[in-house]
Amino acid sequence: MRIRLASIAQRAGTGAAQQLLEEYMRRTQPLQAVECLLYRSEALLLAALERERARMAPVLLLLDARGRAVTSEEMAALVREHRETGTQLLVFAVGPADGWSEAARRAHRMLSLGAMTLPHELARAVLAEQIYRACTILAGHPYHAGH
Amino acid sequence: MRIRLASIAQRAGTGAAQQLLEEYMRRTQPLQAVECLLYRSEALLLAALERERARMAPVLLLLDARGRAVTSEEMAALVREHRETGTQLLVFAVGPADGWSEAARRAHRMLSLGAMTLPHELARAVLAEQIYRACTILAGHPYHAGH
Repeated sequence: MRIRLASIAQRAGTGAAQQLLEEYMRRTQPLQAVECLLYRSEALLLAALERERARMAPVLLLLDARGRAVTSEEMAALVREHRETGTQLLVFAVGPADGWSEAARRAHRMLSLGAMTLPHELARAVLAEQIYRACTILAGHPYHAGH
Repeated sequence: MRIRLASIAQRAGTGAAQQLLEEYMRRTQPLQAVECLLYRSEALLLAALERERARMAPVLLLLDARGRAVTSEEMAALVREHRETGTQLLVFAVGPADGWSEAARRAHRMLSLGAMTLPHELARAVLAEQIYRACTILAGHPYHAGH
Protein backbone atom coordinates (compact mmCIF):
# COMPACT_ATOMS: atom_id res chain seq x y z
CA MET A 1 0.00 0.00 0.00
CA ARG A 2 1.06 3.53 -0.71
CA ILE A 3 -0.10 6.54 1.34
CA ARG A 4 -0.52 9.83 -0.45
CA LEU A 5 -0.81 13.16 1.29
CA ALA A 6 -2.76 15.17 -1.25
CA SER A 7 -3.43 18.84 -0.98
CA ILE A 8 -5.33 21.43 -2.91
CA ALA A 9 -3.06 24.39 -3.29
CA GLN A 10 -1.68 26.58 -6.01
CA ARG A 11 1.94 25.88 -5.16
CA ALA A 12 4.16 24.02 -2.72
CA GLY A 13 4.97 25.88 0.47
CA THR A 14 8.45 27.21 1.05
CA GLY A 15 8.66 28.12 4.74
CA ALA A 16 9.10 26.35 8.03
CA ALA A 17 5.75 24.48 7.73
CA GLN A 18 6.88 22.96 4.44
CA GLN A 19 10.21 21.94 6.01
CA LEU A 20 8.33 20.23 8.82
CA LEU A 21 6.13 18.38 6.32
CA GLU A 22 9.18 17.18 4.40
CA GLU A 23 10.90 16.08 7.60
CA TYR A 24 7.93 13.89 8.62
CA MET A 25 7.63 12.46 5.08
CA ARG A 26 11.33 11.54 5.14
CA ARG A 27 10.97 9.86 8.53
CA THR A 28 7.89 7.92 7.38
CA GLN A 29 9.50 6.56 4.22
CA PRO A 30 11.43 3.65 5.85
CA LEU A 31 8.20 2.52 7.58
CA GLN A 32 5.64 3.09 4.84
CA ALA A 33 5.71 4.16 1.18
CA VAL A 34 4.44 7.72 1.24
CA GLU A 35 4.22 10.58 -1.23
CA CYS A 36 3.02 14.14 -1.21
CA LEU A 37 1.12 15.51 -4.22
CA LEU A 38 -0.33 18.91 -4.91
CA TYR A 39 -3.47 19.47 -6.98
CA ARG A 40 -4.59 22.85 -8.16
CA SER A 41 -8.28 22.19 -7.51
CA GLU A 42 -10.63 19.63 -6.03
CA ALA A 43 -11.76 18.72 -9.56
CA LEU A 44 -8.17 17.94 -10.60
CA LEU A 45 -7.67 15.72 -7.54
CA LEU A 46 -10.88 13.79 -8.21
CA ALA A 47 -10.07 13.44 -11.92
CA ALA A 48 -6.57 12.12 -11.14
CA LEU A 49 -7.96 9.54 -8.71
CA GLU A 50 -10.57 8.53 -11.29
CA ARG A 51 -7.77 7.84 -13.80
CA GLU A 52 -5.93 5.76 -11.19
CA ARG A 53 -9.03 3.82 -10.23
CA ALA A 54 -8.57 0.94 -12.69
CA ARG A 55 -5.01 0.21 -11.55
CA MET A 56 -5.02 1.18 -7.89
CA ALA A 57 -8.53 1.36 -6.41
CA PRO A 58 -7.55 4.43 -4.38
CA VAL A 59 -9.41 5.22 -1.16
CA LEU A 60 -9.87 8.93 -0.52
CA LEU A 61 -10.20 10.40 2.98
CA LEU A 62 -10.98 14.10 3.24
CA LEU A 63 -9.64 16.19 6.08
CA ASP A 64 -12.53 18.40 7.14
CA ALA A 65 -13.51 20.15 10.36
CA ARG A 66 -16.93 18.44 10.10
CA GLY A 67 -15.31 14.99 9.91
CA ARG A 68 -14.76 12.58 12.74
CA ALA A 69 -11.98 13.62 15.14
CA VAL A 70 -9.57 10.73 15.38
CA THR A 71 -7.00 9.96 18.01
CA SER A 72 -3.51 8.91 16.94
CA GLU A 73 -4.33 5.33 17.89
CA GLU A 74 -7.47 5.41 15.72
CA MET A 75 -5.41 6.81 12.86
CA ALA A 76 -3.01 3.86 13.23
CA ALA A 77 -5.95 1.42 13.30
CA LEU A 78 -7.30 3.00 10.13
CA VAL A 79 -3.96 2.61 8.32
CA ARG A 80 -3.70 -1.00 9.49
CA GLU A 81 -7.24 -1.78 8.35
CA HIS A 82 -6.46 -0.50 4.85
CA ARG A 83 -3.16 -2.39 4.71
CA GLU A 84 -4.93 -5.61 5.70
CA THR A 85 -7.91 -5.28 3.40
CA GLY A 86 -5.80 -4.78 0.30
CA THR A 87 -6.14 -1.04 -0.29
CA GLN A 88 -3.37 -0.12 -2.72
CA LEU A 89 -3.47 3.64 -2.44
CA LEU A 90 -4.73 5.48 0.63
CA VAL A 91 -5.14 9.21 0.04
CA PHE A 92 -5.44 11.74 2.87
CA ALA A 93 -6.45 15.04 1.32
CA VAL A 94 -6.22 18.53 2.83
CA GLY A 95 -8.85 20.73 1.25
CA PRO A 96 -8.84 24.11 -0.38
CA ALA A 97 -9.15 27.23 1.79
CA ASP A 98 -12.87 27.46 1.02
CA GLY A 99 -13.52 23.81 1.88
CA TRP A 100 -14.60 20.73 0.00
CA SER A 101 -17.63 20.78 -2.29
CA GLU A 102 -20.80 19.27 -0.93
CA ALA A 103 -20.61 16.51 -3.54
CA ALA A 104 -17.11 15.55 -2.39
CA ARG A 105 -18.18 15.62 1.26
CA ARG A 106 -21.12 13.34 0.52
CA ALA A 107 -19.04 10.87 -1.49
CA HIS A 108 -16.02 10.40 0.77
CA ARG A 109 -15.24 9.67 4.39
CA MET A 110 -14.13 12.71 6.38
CA LEU A 111 -11.61 12.94 9.19
CA SER A 112 -10.97 15.93 11.39
CA LEU A 113 -7.66 17.16 12.80
CA GLY A 114 -9.61 19.02 15.49
CA ALA A 115 -12.09 21.79 16.12
CA MET A 116 -9.60 24.55 15.31
CA THR A 117 -9.15 26.15 11.92
CA LEU A 118 -5.55 25.66 10.80
CA PRO A 119 -3.80 27.32 7.88
CA HIS A 120 -3.38 24.93 4.95
CA GLU A 121 0.40 24.55 5.33
CA LEU A 122 0.22 23.85 9.06
CA ALA A 123 -2.63 21.34 8.54
CA ARG A 124 -0.43 19.49 6.05
CA ALA A 125 2.48 19.37 8.51
CA VAL A 126 0.19 18.10 11.30
CA LEU A 127 -1.26 15.47 8.96
CA ALA A 128 2.23 14.35 7.91
CA GLU A 129 3.17 14.03 11.59
CA GLN A 130 0.03 11.97 12.29
CA ILE A 131 0.77 9.65 9.35
CA TYR A 132 4.33 9.22 10.64
CA ARG A 133 3.02 8.61 14.17
CA ALA A 134 0.47 6.04 12.92
CA CYS A 135 3.25 4.16 11.11
CA THR A 136 5.48 4.18 14.19
CA ILE A 137 2.59 2.83 16.29
CA LEU A 138 2.08 -0.02 13.80
CA ALA A 139 5.82 -0.72 13.66
CA GLY A 140 6.16 -0.81 17.45
CA HIS A 141 8.64 2.07 17.14
CA PRO A 142 9.08 4.02 20.43
CA TYR A 143 8.24 7.47 18.91
CA HIS A 144 4.59 7.55 20.03
CA ALA A 145 5.20 6.28 23.56
CA GLY A 146 7.75 9.04 24.11
CA HIS A 147 5.30 11.89 23.44
CA MET B 1 -3.08 42.01 29.23
CA ARG B 2 -0.12 39.89 28.33
CA ILE B 3 -0.39 36.40 26.83
CA ARG B 4 2.30 33.90 27.71
CA LEU B 5 2.88 30.67 25.85
CA ALA B 6 4.50 28.54 28.53
CA SER B 7 5.97 25.16 27.93
CA ILE B 8 7.54 22.46 29.98
CA ALA B 9 10.68 21.39 28.18
CA GLN B 10 14.36 21.00 28.87
CA ARG B 11 15.41 23.38 26.12
CA ALA B 12 14.09 25.56 23.33
CA GLY B 13 13.57 23.81 20.03
CA THR B 14 15.86 24.52 17.13
CA GLY B 15 14.19 23.08 14.04
CA ALA B 16 11.39 24.01 11.69
CA ALA B 17 8.70 23.74 14.41
CA GLN B 18 10.55 26.32 16.51
CA GLN B 19 10.85 28.63 13.48
CA LEU B 20 7.10 28.35 12.93
CA LEU B 21 6.44 29.19 16.58
CA GLU B 22 8.66 32.24 16.38
CA GLU B 23 7.01 33.37 13.16
CA TYR B 24 3.54 33.29 14.75
CA MET B 25 4.79 35.05 17.88
CA ARG B 26 6.29 37.81 15.74
CA ARG B 27 3.05 38.23 13.80
CA THR B 28 0.99 38.34 17.02
CA GLN B 29 3.13 41.02 18.68
CA PRO B 30 1.57 44.07 16.91
CA LEU B 31 -1.92 42.83 17.89
CA GLN B 32 -1.29 41.56 21.41
CA ALA B 33 1.62 41.55 23.86
CA VAL B 34 2.85 37.97 23.82
CA GLU B 35 5.85 36.08 25.17
CA CYS B 36 7.13 32.54 25.11
CA LEU B 37 8.70 31.06 28.25
CA LEU B 38 10.20 27.67 28.91
CA TYR B 39 10.05 25.95 32.30
CA ARG B 40 12.04 22.85 33.13
CA SER B 41 9.22 21.21 35.10
CA GLU B 42 5.57 21.67 36.04
CA ALA B 43 6.66 22.56 39.58
CA LEU B 44 8.88 25.38 38.29
CA LEU B 45 6.02 26.78 36.18
CA LEU B 46 3.59 26.73 39.11
CA ALA B 47 6.17 28.27 41.46
CA ALA B 48 6.90 31.08 38.99
CA LEU B 49 3.20 31.87 38.62
CA GLU B 50 2.81 31.81 42.40
CA ARG B 51 5.56 34.46 42.69
CA GLU B 52 3.81 36.56 40.05
CA ARG B 53 0.41 36.22 41.67
CA ALA B 54 0.63 39.32 43.87
CA ARG B 55 1.49 41.63 40.97
CA MET B 56 -0.27 40.04 38.02
CA ALA B 57 -3.06 37.63 39.06
CA PRO B 58 -2.11 35.26 36.25
CA VAL B 59 -4.70 32.88 34.82
CA LEU B 60 -3.33 29.51 33.80
CA LEU B 61 -4.89 27.37 31.07
CA LEU B 62 -3.46 23.90 30.54
CA LEU B 63 -3.34 22.32 27.11
CA ASP B 64 -4.40 18.72 27.65
CA ALA B 65 -5.99 16.06 25.45
CA ARG B 66 -8.66 15.63 28.15
CA GLY B 67 -9.55 19.32 28.06
CA ARG B 68 -12.33 20.96 26.13
CA ALA B 69 -11.71 21.12 22.38
CA VAL B 70 -12.12 24.73 21.33
CA THR B 71 -12.78 26.17 17.92
CA SER B 72 -10.74 29.16 16.79
CA GLU B 73 -13.76 31.39 17.38
CA GLU B 74 -14.09 30.08 20.96
CA MET B 75 -10.39 30.71 21.48
CA ALA B 76 -10.92 34.32 20.36
CA ALA B 77 -13.92 34.67 22.69
CA LEU B 78 -11.81 33.35 25.56
CA VAL B 79 -9.04 35.90 24.91
CA ARG B 80 -11.63 38.71 24.68
CA GLU B 81 -13.30 37.63 27.91
CA HIS B 82 -9.97 37.80 29.76
CA ARG B 83 -9.10 41.17 28.23
CA GLU B 84 -12.47 42.56 29.30
CA THR B 85 -12.50 41.17 32.82
CA GLY B 86 -9.10 42.59 33.72
CA THR B 87 -6.87 39.54 33.52
CA GLN B 88 -3.31 40.85 33.40
CA LEU B 89 -1.48 37.71 32.41
CA LEU B 90 -3.10 34.85 30.49
CA VAL B 91 -0.90 31.76 30.37
CA PHE B 92 -1.44 28.94 27.88
CA ALA B 93 0.77 26.05 28.93
CA VAL B 94 1.87 23.05 26.90
CA GLY B 95 2.62 20.17 29.23
CA PRO B 96 5.50 17.80 29.71
CA ALA B 97 5.69 14.64 27.57
CA ASP B 98 4.22 12.57 30.42
CA GLY B 99 1.31 14.96 30.99
CA TRP B 100 0.21 17.29 33.76
CA SER B 101 -0.02 16.07 37.35
CA GLU B 102 -3.46 15.26 38.65
CA ALA B 103 -3.24 18.16 41.10
CA ALA B 104 -2.53 20.61 38.28
CA ARG B 105 -5.37 19.16 36.20
CA ARG B 106 -7.80 19.54 39.08
CA ALA B 107 -6.75 23.11 39.83
CA HIS B 108 -6.74 24.65 36.36
CA ARG B 109 -8.97 24.89 33.33
CA MET B 110 -7.92 22.60 30.48
CA LEU B 111 -8.17 23.18 26.75
CA SER B 112 -7.55 20.65 24.04
CA LEU B 113 -5.93 21.16 20.64
CA GLY B 114 -7.66 18.00 19.43
CA ALA B 115 -7.92 14.26 19.90
CA MET B 116 -4.51 13.59 18.35
CA THR B 117 -1.27 13.30 20.26
CA LEU B 118 1.17 15.91 18.94
CA PRO B 119 4.87 16.18 19.66
CA HIS B 120 5.63 18.98 22.10
CA GLU B 121 7.27 21.29 19.54
CA LEU B 122 4.46 20.93 17.02
CA ALA B 123 1.83 21.48 19.74
CA ARG B 124 3.60 24.75 20.65
CA ALA B 125 3.58 25.90 17.01
CA VAL B 126 -0.12 25.04 16.64
CA LEU B 127 -0.91 26.87 19.88
CA ALA B 128 1.07 29.93 18.72
CA GLU B 129 -0.90 29.90 15.46
CA GLN B 130 -4.19 29.68 17.36
CA ILE B 131 -3.21 32.59 19.62
CA TYR B 132 -2.29 34.62 16.52
CA ARG B 133 -5.56 33.61 14.84
CA ALA B 134 -7.59 34.56 17.93
CA CYS B 135 -5.96 38.01 17.97
CA THR B 136 -6.64 38.54 14.26
CA ILE B 137 -10.30 37.58 14.80
CA LEU B 138 -10.58 40.13 17.63
CA ALA B 139 -8.80 42.79 15.55
CA GLY B 140 -11.04 42.23 12.52
CA HIS B 141 -7.89 41.32 10.56
CA PRO B 142 -8.63 39.28 7.39
CA TYR B 143 -6.27 36.36 8.28
CA HIS B 144 -8.94 34.05 9.70
CA ALA B 145 -11.51 34.66 6.97
CA GLY B 146 -8.95 33.68 4.34
CA HIS B 147 -8.31 30.24 5.78
